[in-house]
Amino acid sequence: MSEPIDFWFDFSSPYGYLMSERIDDLAARFGRKVRWHPILLGVVFKATASAPLTLQHPAKAAYALRDFERSARFLGVPCRRPTRFPLPTQNAARAYYWLHGQDCALARRFAHATYRALFVDDRDISAPAVVLEIAANLGVDRERLEAALQSPEIKDRLKEEVDNALRIGLFGSPHVIIDGEAFFGADRLPQIERWLETGGF
Amino acid sequence: MSEPIDFWFDFSSPYGYLMSERIDDLAARFGRKVRWHPILLGVVFKATASAPLTLQHPAKAAYALRDFERSARFLGVPCRRPTRFPLPTQNAARAYYWLHGQDCALARRFAHATYRALFVDDRDISAPAVVLEIAANLGVDRERLEAALQSPEIKDRLKEEVDNALRIGLFGSPHVIIDGEAFFGADRLPQIERWLETGGF
Repeated sequence: MSEPIDFWFDFSSPYGYLMSERIDDLAARFGRKVRWHPILLGVVFKATASAPLTLQHPAKAAYALRDFERSARFLGVPCRRPTRFPLPTQNAARAYYWLHGQDCALARRFAHATYRALFVDDRDISAPAVVLEIAANLGVDRERLEAALQSPEIKDRLKEEVDNALRIGLFGSPHVIIDGEAFFGADRLPQIERWLETGGF
Repeated sequence: MSEPIDFWFDFSSPYGYLMSERIDDLAARFGRKVRWHPILLGVVFKATASAPLTLQHPAKAAYALRDFERSARFLGVPCRRPTRFPLPTQNAARAYYWLHGQDCALARRFAHATYRALFVDDRDISAPAVVLEIAANLGVDRERLEAALQSPEIKDRLKEEVDNALRIGLFGSPHVIIDGEAFFGADRLPQIERWLETGGF
């Protein structure tokens, strides 16, 4: 029962942001670690014939925006509707994997800072300059990161993670996988808690 | 704060079934009544360019089936995967509205019996004979109901409810509306509870 939990998300996913603010603490209560996997929802949506919440039918899109803000209040997570949404997140995801190769804890701090930049401070995290600034604020060497974002190794690493996501049947964000059991959506937090508590139900 | 809550659902909706087993008791704890509105998801899906869970991408469909059964266990609601799914529910919905015109409490018992026939006893509730049998077991005159299912008044009543559902922006089942606030999905039960408790958050 000590295998790490896997947390799959896109940096532009509102419910992924909510999950990111809760999953580590929840897992820690049961002695579990969490592996974070930023991916690109655009690729996943193309493969699974889906679309971002706000580009679906107007009634669904309107509900989703309202529900996201209500769900954030319900969980006590600060949030604000981003001006630009959805937006591409390959720079943020590549930065995450490069940082992770050097310092897991730093990568985790970068992930939190990136999510909060988008969903609290309304920053355009698709811009390389914004990603570099977020990292620099955490003490990262801006020039080394800027070079890394263009490196084939890091591009391949992200591609590999997205391929893995599709291979294991992901179709949205967030997905949390515990001992092979998949939970989709921040609204599955209560089920995740009971699963960790009981070892499955 | 004493306005009734509205509960919109399709008799073939798994998460609608889960909601149906919890919403009345939850509302009653806060002194609220619930108005039930069976509708036809097929019409709603056509209008909102959506599809039943099991006819979506295979990864999504597989997850949905597993998640439904896990969510039922999580809530302590008995369930079994129906052999025939999805299935048309206009006979069940029409029977509900006809019964409701005569005896609200009887209509509620019929709705519970119909949902359980599908999701516990694996009956084909699309068949008029099954709907009539469920009603007859509750003391309803089978011949009067059989005639009513074909009456223009009852057909119009259901059509009107479906039109209303589209008008207020429904896109799936279940939807619960409390004082104008929409909650989609059985997984919103905790938010519904807090909303009733606090009058909004």
